[in-house]
Amino acid sequence: MTTQSQHWQTLWVNVNIATMTEGGNGYGEIKAGALAISDNKIVWLGKQSDLPDYDSDVVDVIDGQGKWLTPGLIDCHTHIIFGGNRANEFEMRLQGKSYQEIAEAGGGIVSTVKATRAASEDELFQSALTRLTALHQQGVTTVEVKSGYGLDVDTEIKMLKVAGRLAESLPVTVKRTFLGAHALPVEYKGNPDGYLDLVCEQMMPQIAEQSLADTVDVFCENIGFNLTQTERVFASAKKHGLAMKVHAEQLSDLGGTKLAAQYNALSSDHVEFLSEDGVKAMKAADMTAVLLPGAFYFLRETQLPPIAALREQGVPMAIATDANPGSSPICSLQLMLNMACTLFRLTPAEALAGVTCHGAKALGVSESKGQLAVGYDADIALWNISQPAELCYQFGVNPLMALYQNGKKAI
Amino acid sequence: MTTQSQHWQTLWVNVNIATMTEGGNGYGEIKAGALAISDNKIVWLGKQSDLPDYDSDVVDVIDGQGKWLTPGLIDCHTHIIFGGNRANEFEMRLQGKSYQEIAEAGGGIVSTVKATRAASEDELFQSALTRLTALHQQGVTTVEVKSGYGLDVDTEIKMLKVAGRLAESLPVTVKRTFLGAHALPVEYKGNPDGYLDLVCEQMMPQIAEQSLADTVDVFCENIGFNLTQTERVFASAKKHGLAMKVHAEQLSDLGGTKLAAQYNALSSDHVEFLSEDGVKAMKAADMTAVLLPGAFYFLRETQLPPIAALREQGVPMAIATDANPGSSPICSLQLMLNMACTLFRLTPAEALAGVTCHGAKALGVSESKGQLAVGYDADIALWNISQPAELCYQFGVNPLMALYQNGKKAI
Ligand SMILES: [Zn+2]
Ligand SMILES: [Zn+2]
Repeated sequence: MTTQSQHWQTLWVNVNIATMTEGGNGYGEIKAGALAISDNKIVWLGKQSDLPDYDSDVVDVIDGQGKWLTPGLIDCHTHIIFGGNRANEFEMRLQGKSYQEIAEAGGGIVSTVKATRAASEDELFQSALTRLTALHQQGVTTVEVKSGYGLDVDTEIKMLKVAGRLAESLPVTVKRTFLGAHALPVEYKGNPDGYLDLVCEQMMPQIAEQSLADTVDVFCENIGFNLTQTERVFASAKKHGLAMKVHAEQLSDLGGTKLAAQYNALSSDHVEFLSEDGVKAMKAADMTAVLLPGAFYFLRETQLPPIAALREQGVPMAIATDANPGSSPICSLQLMLNMACTLFRLTPAEALAGVTCHGAKALGVSESKGQLAVGYDADIALWNISQPAELCYQFGVNPLMALYQNGKKAI
Repeated sequence: MTTQSQHWQTLWVNVNIATMTEGGNGYGEIKAGALAISDNKIVWLGKQSDLPDYDSDVVDVIDGQGKWLTPGLIDCHTHIIFGGNRANEFEMRLQGKSYQEIAEAGGGIVSTVKATRAASEDELFQSALTRLTALHQQGVTTVEVKSGYGLDVDTEIKMLKVAGRLAESLPVTVKRTFLGAHALPVEYKGNPDGYLDLVCEQMMPQIAEQSLADTVDVFCENIGFNLTQTERVFASAKKHGLAMKVHAEQLSDLGGTKLAAQYNALSSDHVEFLSEDGVKAMKAADMTAVLLPGAFYFLRETQLPPIAALREQGVPMAIATDANPGSSPICSLQLMLNMACTLFRLTPAEALAGVTCHGAKALGVSESKGQLAVGYDADIALWNISQPAELCYQFGVNPLMALYQNGKKAI
């Protein structure tokens, strides 16, 4: 037993490793590699032929059968906590029913807010757990979960408490985001400033004080909140020491991303209509662009995000499900890998970076997650594939063979 | 114990039933229903309040918890038996490599033919079993499987034998289709008629004699076989008493569908470029149009199939995965339900009919499969949904609770 390996607990041998340490420029491949973990951290990785001596009586050695390790996947933008569903509205639209008829039948985000308010904390927890389990079984070890279907103090807090319970129920790291400024609740119709009083003066202080969220998000859009209103939420977040991100430039170029850059937000999400200037502002502020191909697909959008400009400026591109009942009722990060390539023309290496290193960056955890490197959290997936691109190319057969989260076997 | 129920074996109570007996016009709903099976057939279904007396000591009563029964799903068009994969080609294309570079690296169907010929029967079986298992776990009880990556006598027969073994390994009914006329093998370059000699005079007689397939398929396309060549294959199929279907009008309007109608083929598949006349010919010949939204998505096609004309003429529309390594590496019929609605704008009832009653029709088994009706095979799925449209609206969380095939519990 050498000093070097004395604390090793688990050692993978006979594996290929996609370290994802090169951003979107490649997989950071180590072929015929080995990787050791101790407690919850990666402590050694490299070519198997360079392995130092280790005491095989103490170390649990796993034969990776020549398959591939990647970082555990990160879904950095979800709305998986909600009541009800919108299948009825989906069906009415396809039956050719008018907007008016659908609205009269109670469609739209209003119906989700109503169902989320009506649901008990337990009901919300159970349905969200089902969704998180689906993500987890596809290799997800870190997920971001937003509030935003409560739009009143109690329900926003209820949602964030559910998010906390999710983290205790599955071996998944849950980052919680307060999205009080998701939509205007009906009781504040015509009075957005009155609602933002509630968000900034009632919800935000309680959430910060009880540490129910680490990040604040705003839906900055013509059908959401304007720039002035968005800035008010950011200012309040900053005052309470919370990180920021924004839903911006999905349907129009309102400038939400540039504003978010001024507040050093972590990410701007959607960004289909982001201008060249906006891209540069993101780069200058070291922001991540979170691309959401599921919503693009489901809403049949035609305006693609400015991939070439983001690539040229070197803005990291994350990929997430945006799982939500209205615009992306799709709980599959593996499908998003395929859609990022097929619809957005990302390379498989860029797409995989989008759900590993760049997903981590969008959540402010790029120093500990999203890469396989010494000192990083031992969130590791083993895949039955012969090359990393297979994770993006094929869909339907789940190639996940094993999943470790925080150094412990989760699947 | 009444005479009527004396042979009942299993009885679902407290279920809603989507019988799918109305084609695409609705779900054929029975709310608060019950359904009884005996041996492998459905023997009673209706309102639970109309249940005759039954002997609960003999009948296995299952509480459906108010959930939904549908027919087991039917994937009526797949190519799940093949060697290798085309992830490399997928990646090269996204990296901007030229057609020439990809061809030189051995891309295209040629690479799949090479890998399929090189694979042992066991290797082909194992990889196809993985794919069929994925389909089965989503509720599929009947699948069509094509040959077509051998393009020589031995490998075409090897593929069809693998298809036969699949049926013995999983509780799934497997319909086998001989697709020798899928592409021109390199050794017959410039000599399609020479290759069709092999297909019609060597492969076809052996396959018919050994009952290795019940249906014959042709890829009728500019990049496949022309009308004269297609007709030659149909004539041979007819001579050997085999049913017919065709890959037609995917990339151009060559007239393969009309020709297939003349031969009373079961279905024409893809049909993006099908003309109004072609639609009418299908109707007159009682054919089914098999729509393949996965290939449409993966190839980023823009020409939609003539849905409105098919609907107006009353041509049944089936939906299938087309699972294959080149144009639809997607083994998920549930995803096809969503894509049929999202991309092709089918109603959820039409989409569900596409994978039940109309899928059965495309395979010539509409008298025994694809509907929940007395006398039909007891292929039945129980779903954790509150309305049938949820099967199409959401994706990622698999709502399958139980699956019966031929009267036996499969999942
Ligand atoms: Zn969102
Ligand atoms: Zn096909």
